[in-house]
Amino acid sequence: MTTTSTPFAPVKWQDDALVLLDQTRLPVETTYLTLTTAQEVWAAIRHLQVRGAPAIGMAAAYGLYLGIRNSDANDFDTFWQHLSEQADYLGTSRPTAVNLFWALDRIKARVQRESGKPVAELKAAVLNEALSIQREDAEVCRRIGEHLLTLLKDGMGILTHCNPGALATAAYGTATAPLYLAKERGWNLKVYADETRPVLQGARLTAYELQQAGIDVTLICDNMAAMVMAQGKVQAVIVGTDRVAANGDVANKIGTYGVAVLAHAHGIPFYVAAPLSSIDLDTPTGADIPIEERPAEEITHGLGKQVAPDGIKVYNPAFDVTPARYITAIVTENGIYKPDEIRSCKR
Amino acid sequence: MTTTSTPFAPVKWQDDALVLLDQTRLPVETTYLTLTTAQEVWAAIRHLQVRGAPAIGMAAAYGLYLGIRNSDANDFDTFWQHLSEQADYLGTSRPTAVNLFWALDRIKARVQRESGKPVAELKAAVLNEALSIQREDAEVCRRIGEHLLTLLKDGMGILTHCNPGALATAAYGTATAPLYLAKERGWNLKVYADETRPVLQGARLTAYELQQAGIDVTLICDNMAAMVMAQGKVQAVIVGTDRVAANGDVANKIGTYGVAVLAHAHGIPFYVAAPLSSIDLDTPTGADIPIEERPAEEITHGLGKQVAPDGIKVYNPAFDVTPARYITAIVTENGIYKPDEIRSCKR
Repeated sequence: MTTTSTPFAPVKWQDDALVLLDQTRLPVETTYLTLTTAQEVWAAIRHLQVRGAPAIGMAAAYGLYLGIRNSDANDFDTFWQHLSEQADYLGTSRPTAVNLFWALDRIKARVQRESGKPVAELKAAVLNEALSIQREDAEVCRRIGEHLLTLLKDGMGILTHCNPGALATAAYGTATAPLYLAKERGWNLKVYADETRPVLQGARLTAYELQQAGIDVTLICDNMAAMVMAQGKVQAVIVGTDRVAANGDVANKIGTYGVAVLAHAHGIPFYVAAPLSSIDLDTPTGADIPIEERPAEEITHGLGKQVAPDGIKVYNPAFDVTPARYITAIVTENGIYKPDEIRSCKR
Repeated sequence: MTTTSTPFAPVKWQDDALVLLDQTRLPVETTYLTLTTAQEVWAAIRHLQVRGAPAIGMAAAYGLYLGIRNSDANDFDTFWQHLSEQADYLGTSRPTAVNLFWALDRIKARVQRESGKPVAELKAAVLNEALSIQREDAEVCRRIGEHLLTLLKDGMGILTHCNPGALATAAYGTATAPLYLAKERGWNLKVYADETRPVLQGARLTAYELQQAGIDVTLICDNMAAMVMAQGKVQAVIVGTDRVAANGDVANKIGTYGVAVLAHAHGIPFYVAAPLSSIDLDTPTGADIPIEERPAEEITHGLGKQVAPDGIKVYNPAFDVTPARYITAIVTENGIYKPDEIRSCKR
């Protein structure tokens, strides 16, 4: 069930099985896993073979169907017990993944709503809800991409950071969505992908998926972005986000703030692709967003060998906050907003 | 012959031998090599066990002495032939290292000037010239450090990039010199070292040498510099340089330009430590400095495992140019200059 023109789907339902792109083999090998049991899905989530919040949610949703499709329940109560057991089990695969629980709860709510139906229909409802979750995620991404595309022109250079990409979503990604849509329209965009230290999502994932799609992508180190901008190679920056505060401040992968300051200094527009689900009007400003610090080893040992002395002090914030004043526009599936207008986006 | 209080000398003459810190073992192991022949010095230079322009020049100078100290020449012409042969031989160890030839030529010129003396005295002159080269380099670094120190205060946070450090020089380094001098004076500076992708000189070398000296150093990824600045942790940026143009534009390791733009945006002074030998008044502007591009593999495979897909396009400039307008001061052994005053620094 590939719903888009992106060259691969990280999660797809095909021939009564869940087919996953094994993201632990990237960027060197493109390998698909065919999973037919909830146990296999649990293991794939646990071992990071699927990653990215939306993709994890989708995998868990299909996993829940695989867990109940052979249920021998003949009545609602028994079926509900089986469903709940499988959902609880899948929830233990990655207990910090909010989207995973959101997807499982959404399916359970659907089954509750249809509790009067026979078990066979309830099973079909579980699968249909999983398919809906995926279809809706692809639609959100496509709409974000359509809006962003109105801000771009054929021939532009685009810089991006981290992997706000199709690999994490049903299709298109968020910040990458206009790149895929531009490709469908025959545009030639020239993309610069920051490698995104320390975990190198840009090198491992963004460079991979854009290359697979035949999009012109050039990998750079994070510290080369300024030079590429000064050389006039970039006409827009597009990034994703983990959370947008009510005042339009944006939390995203570490390094995003620096890219925003550099874009501002070079007169380059800075766009944030933000699904409505990432806009948190209960968080007043960026200062209210806690910044996770991650282990030193990601920096000192993360790339295959030790690159810093034993015992060195390290600062490794996972995210930073870009103040609204550096953001040209925040683009949601509902449209394009100035940062100070973001409060109105959910109306 | 350790001339300073830095915790190690990368190159030192000790007990009639050349003692080198083996920089290929850093940052994990601190190992010294004791070399007593020109052949051993040739191999150490070739295998990058000594690196950094001044340090390579010093090692070659001592290597030349090791190559002629057992010469059986009884007259100047024979000694000159032996000296020239050894110099030519050492020159093949790293033919692109300008400082290597500068050091060898300087010793040959000294011997030419003293050609009337007996061979034993000429041999002593060779060693003395090598010692002078090292002493003068340490003195240049110390004077740069003294001038920079007048721009700093106890308790400040300092951000640096790449390894403008003691490991490349006779002592102190250039941009690191004020950090060592501050330590000698009992100041507490808090240093942030950019890891400096792709080759990680900041992680492997700067973090190592400052840690060895007991200086408070924190390693960050390049893309964290902006956040550290926004948090108020940095009161000055100090970097080194490969070349300063006559208009005050500065070429240095890739990433320097971005740090300068970020410092400017945060109102943080940006200082360049520049030995007079790096100031090239024959280069009118930064635009006249050629930028070397280095192999893609440094980015895609440089850290022990492949981190980007096969065949990915990569842009890997080794240096960038920081325009004079982003530079608060250029600091040489002769004093502190505004970028637009740099033409006067050699008067």
